[in-house]
Amino acid sequence: MRNNNRKNDELREIKITKNFIMHPEGSVLIEFGNTKVICNATVEEKVPPFLKGSGSGWVTAEYSMIPRATNVRTQREVNKGKPTGRTMEIQRLIGRSLRSAVDLKKLGERTIIVDCDVIQADGGTRTASITGGYLALETAVEQLINSGLLSQNPVIAKVAAISVGKVKGEILLDLEYSEDSLAEVDMNIVMNSKNEFIEIQGTGEEATFSYDELIKFIEAAKKGFEKLFEIG
Amino acid sequence: MRNNNRKNDELREIKITKNFIMHPEGSVLIEFGNTKVICNATVEEKVPPFLKGSGSGWVTAEYSMIPRATNVRTQREVNKGKPTGRTMEIQRLIGRSLRSAVDLKKLGERTIIVDCDVIQADGGTRTASITGGYLALETAVEQLINSGLLSQNPVIAKVAAISVGKVKGEILLDLEYSEDSLAEVDMNIVMNSKNEFIEIQGTGEEATFSYDELIKFIEAAKKGFEKLFEIG
Amino acid sequence: MRNNNRKNDELREIKITKNFIMHPEGSVLIEFGNTKVICNATVEEKVPPFLKGSGSGWVTAEYSMIPRATNVRTQREVNKGKPTGRTMEIQRLIGRSLRSAVDLKKLGERTIIVDCDVIQADGGTRTASITGGYLALETAVEQLINSGLLSQNPVIAKVAAISVGKVKGEILLDLEYSEDSLAEVDMNIVMNSKNEFIEIQGTGEEATFSYDELIKFIEAAKKGFEKLFEIG
Amino acid sequence: MRNNNRKNDELREIKITKNFIMHPEGSVLIEFGNTKVICNATVEEKVPPFLKGSGSGWVTAEYSMIPRATNVRTQREVNKGKPTGRTMEIQRLIGRSLRSAVDLKKLGERTIIVDCDVIQADGGTRTASITGGYLALETAVEQLINSGLLSQNPVIAKVAAISVGKVKGEILLDLEYSEDSLAEVDMNIVMNSKNEFIEIQGTGEEATFSYDELIKFIEAAKKGFEKLFEIG
Amino acid sequence: MRNNNRKNDELREIKITKNFIMHPEGSVLIEFGNTKVICNATVEEKVPPFLKGSGSGWVTAEYSMIPRATNVRTQREVNKGKPTGRTMEIQRLIGRSLRSAVDLKKLGERTIIVDCDVIQADGGTRTASITGGYLALETAVEQLINSGLLSQNPVIAKVAAISVGKVKGEILLDLEYSEDSLAEVDMNIVMNSKNEFIEIQGTGEEATFSYDELIKFIEAAKKGFEKLFEIG
Amino acid sequence: MRNNNRKNDELREIKITKNFIMHPEGSVLIEFGNTKVICNATVEEKVPPFLKGSGSGWVTAEYSMIPRATNVRTQREVNKGKPTGRTMEIQRLIGRSLRSAVDLKKLGERTIIVDCDVIQADGGTRTASITGGYLALETAVEQLINSGLLSQNPVIAKVAAISVGKVKGEILLDLEYSEDSLAEVDMNIVMNSKNEFIEIQGTGEEATFSYDELIKFIEAAKKGFEKLFEIG
Repeated sequence: MRNNNRKNDELREIKITKNFIMHPEGSVLIEFGNTKVICNATVEEKVPPFLKGSGSGWVTAEYSMIPRATNVRTQREVNKGKPTGRTMEIQRLIGRSLRSAVDLKKLGERTIIVDCDVIQADGGTRTASITGGYLALETAVEQLINSGLLSQNPVIAKVAAISVGKVKGEILLDLEYSEDSLAEVDMNIVMNSKNEFIEIQGTGEEATFSYDELIKFIEAAKKGFEKLFEIG
Repeated sequence: MRNNNRKNDELREIKITKNFIMHPEGSVLIEFGNTKVICNATVEEKVPPFLKGSGSGWVTAEYSMIPRATNVRTQREVNKGKPTGRTMEIQRLIGRSLRSAVDLKKLGERTIIVDCDVIQADGGTRTASITGGYLALETAVEQLINSGLLSQNPVIAKVAAISVGKVKGEILLDLEYSEDSLAEVDMNIVMNSKNEFIEIQGTGEEATFSYDELIKFIEAAKKGFEKLFEIG
Repeated sequence: MRNNNRKNDELREIKITKNFIMHPEGSVLIEFGNTKVICNATVEEKVPPFLKGSGSGWVTAEYSMIPRATNVRTQREVNKGKPTGRTMEIQRLIGRSLRSAVDLKKLGERTIIVDCDVIQADGGTRTASITGGYLALETAVEQLINSGLLSQNPVIAKVAAISVGKVKGEILLDLEYSEDSLAEVDMNIVMNSKNEFIEIQGTGEEATFSYDELIKFIEAAKKGFEKLFEIG
Repeated sequence: MRNNNRKNDELREIKITKNFIMHPEGSVLIEFGNTKVICNATVEEKVPPFLKGSGSGWVTAEYSMIPRATNVRTQREVNKGKPTGRTMEIQRLIGRSLRSAVDLKKLGERTIIVDCDVIQADGGTRTASITGGYLALETAVEQLINSGLLSQNPVIAKVAAISVGKVKGEILLDLEYSEDSLAEVDMNIVMNSKNEFIEIQGTGEEATFSYDELIKFIEAAKKGFEKLFEIG
Repeated sequence: MRNNNRKNDELREIKITKNFIMHPEGSVLIEFGNTKVICNATVEEKVPPFLKGSGSGWVTAEYSMIPRATNVRTQREVNKGKPTGRTMEIQRLIGRSLRSAVDLKKLGERTIIVDCDVIQADGGTRTASITGGYLALETAVEQLINSGLLSQNPVIAKVAAISVGKVKGEILLDLEYSEDSLAEVDMNIVMNSKNEFIEIQGTGEEATFSYDELIKFIEAAKKGFEKLFEIG
Repeated sequence: MRNNNRKNDELREIKITKNFIMHPEGSVLIEFGNTKVICNATVEEKVPPFLKGSGSGWVTAEYSMIPRATNVRTQREVNKGKPTGRTMEIQRLIGRSLRSAVDLKKLGERTIIVDCDVIQADGGTRTASITGGYLALETAVEQLINSGLLSQNPVIAKVAAISVGKVKGEILLDLEYSEDSLAEVDMNIVMNSKNEFIEIQGTGEEATFSYDELIKFIEAAKKGFEKLFEIG
């Protein structure tokens, strides 16, 4: 049995606090159960060098955890001199996912940076970051529209992410840490509100998975997305 | 007139939320007005090399800000490859201040690391970090005592910090950002609950200060400490 | 029409040169068309700290490209001071894939490091690295068995990887660079010779993909794997 | 009794050698007893980005020690990849102190960099650096005036620094290393020749200090400054 | 007796494979016995800042080894964060040697970067890199002439390099690793096809050498160069 | 005509100040004309890992310049994060040269680190560093003998270094900066007091040199060494 009597295909309780931090153009505290991520969106009126003069904008993301977001303290990455491979992998995933939500041409030559800072981790920090990061991005875009800087809405569709995994042979939705650490297969899926896939990443390091299981993972995730897009 | 009708020698509203993050041995969210710092204390059963075999413990601190804690986004230090001089100066100050609160011999060969992560900045982040960091440290020590790992309380006295400054010729207590950015003289004072000084740092980069002004800064700070030690 | 009259579900010509470099315990030059990767396996009689005393071994991988492997010269990563996010993502993927091929308990407390150095790139360097890396690993394991250091073969199954993508609406197998740079959806699949999935990574940054397309990608890949496992 | 029969409120012998190194615009070897610092001032006809077009100049400082300036060899900071927190704290202090000596508007859009390189350390290297650094700066400014590049003298007042400390309960002026290493309280004070405070930094890590002691530290320092401004 | 019945003043078998990698403007695989180096020349239509507007071009080189080029695996330099002193010394030597082959004025404001990547090492990697690097450079220059970008040939003379050493009292030409590791004196000589010296570097760390021996080293090298310039 | 009426084969005035810095086991200020280098030798009772248990000692060197040792200020290497290639090349040369002076077996399992810090540069800093570094090393060894830690003298022979160059077709000994910057060929020679070569490094980047010129360079250097070994 899962904690709090959760069913295998049930999400944890999700809480969204908008305007959490006062300075950013978009700010959301997202909670998936005990996992808590501050997602702040910053608008900068410039683009990376490869886009200068293209008329096109950019969306990028950064991800970090405070040292005691985790049960055992994690050393700050600045003290190692560089981000870990895990951090780089996650922030590249968040960036790709959020870019898929936006028509970069309509955004114009500006950049939206979405910072995802995990203050409490209990599994699923990358999927919470994508889901909350989208909401912060959406708020920042609304502000650009309200202030007259944008005349058309560049958002194509809502984006969210969810994890599924195989734990002791059972397929579970939205794994918390105690489940994730036992998972034989771990899959993160990013979809949009038009029911399209943006990214699918499944890893069977501890155990492999069959074609049939792959289909079941995707089915479980789809149920979660229906719920998620109702909330967000 | 200061914001919210504050008097020159009045502190901002201070809020303390204990047990803010679930994993650390001590965790406090401290708010001085709009300045918000998560202070997490971690106990590790080891000491730095220079203390091995000494019977003595260690207290140290780290300080960081999430990128949009500030009005304009600040680049993450990990992406510069090293902490800035400002960060190093602040975390060394927090560390020295908190070590003064503890009899390191009584702590035994263990380390308490206090992480101060600013999630929203509006002036006075280093003094809020010391004040909140002490409270997180205190909670962690209580837990060591309750769990039987410590038989005596190693805490000598409560520690807190406060800023004073000269703005347009007036002496102001507990500066918020709009005041701090105009300050001609800026002073941070760390005291303990026995009315003793731990650290005093006054800088007159923009303007110098006289002996009489120095005495007035200290008087103003003392009033603030009385209030602070009532709350904390 | 694809180059060299390739069909959409046809692999490029694959060449495997064993014992390519004289020093390593296993060494393979793998060519997928114009993509050429030197895969060298090194056996070290030690394990990372987290495995000391566990009786279990480790498999890890590193990935790099020489500067003119690419059409435009790429700056050496050592001159940037750290590996790029892309490199880290790829070498973590190779490492996970190769670990899935080995029963780490049977390997004993030793590490196999597989270095994948791309000397010529024309798309699919990560999938060629996994496929060639497995063959180098296999050779190194054979040498351990022949020298009497291993009494049982720790290899569970052969491992290989393949890319599929959607280019101008068509589903193509084993993309070369001119196709990859136009791909709307890009998927890398790692399977073993028991027809099990090890990793699946699909990205629709430029365009999303539907459930039906996902199934077609997987079908196309499966055909490729049948061919690959015949060769390797 | 202090070494060389020094009284508690007596400075060490101070020696100033002007034009010590032949290349810089200003160069001074300053000796406080056995502490020896080469202070070189460089004039550059450019300013940091934040001052471009402002009409205002800049003064900054760097601080380093050669490895055997100290009794036990100190590893070069370049081999650690970054300056230590101590170095950063000291060079920021020297920079602030020297900027207070100069009307940056009158300096015009140019930068004076003061390099303080300790060749022999015996306590008080930061206060010697400020005192000697001011003298190097003064020489560089004279050269700018003599060469016609400056029409008005931008120097506001002479600047110097001094340390005081509490050692075994006694208040001592200008601590040498054998005293400094025993100090319970350590205070560095920067003043100018108009009898104004520029910076005050007092640390009671080992022991706290009372209000009365603070006043006594300042009185002792003032005596030292009278002597210092006579010499410099 | 040397391996393969080589005489003391005999070169190893030398093999040159032109157009080894398909992307670069010049590409050579050079083999001195078992030592194998990929030398790729890249033409970039820009120069370093110190040459901008000078009308003069630049030639530079980089050097690296793949981890298992050596008998024992060598850690990648990117994972140490910076090139080793050995690498820097070698790539500066290659750069100086190749610049001496070219009239930089005639090259015009463009840069040729020669990347020397050792894929298998058995002694003499730096001399093989210079010799092969020159050939890659020559091919790139030919391509510039053929494409009409250069009207005159900027190459002054062919350049090659060779090692000599004293091993157990005997003077040996073109040392392989088993000899090099025993060498008492080690000398690398760079000459051009006009019989002129470009660089001479002799090191007697293990043993010193006399004037007479120096003359003998040079005589031995000269014989090697005659052979080398016939081949290259 | 050279400055100060120097003849082509004449050294600059050389000054040696022993015991220059009070802390090191050996300390020398060496001056070759206006070039001034502080050479400090440190004895540490440990060896690098590759020598542990071998009974053999080690000698190593580090080299640096203070920023205004040069006419134009040079950025500190610590601010670039790593030593430049030039620094690494020089300190490796000094280290090899000084190791040749010592029987490492007789030194026993200890390390002598020689720090060469250039405080004023006017050409020939590397040769001055070797010459002065040897003298600091010699003093440190004497102290080891006097203190009874060494029973036999491990010094094999005195070591010194000298530069020669071709400037406007003339062969000059001991180049100062104004000559060095014009040199077509630049050669550094390290010899010992037994008239043996330790290292020879000649570079003809700007111009090549013939066999006859090589012989003349060496002849000129030999005259310089006779003089140098008289002094040192």
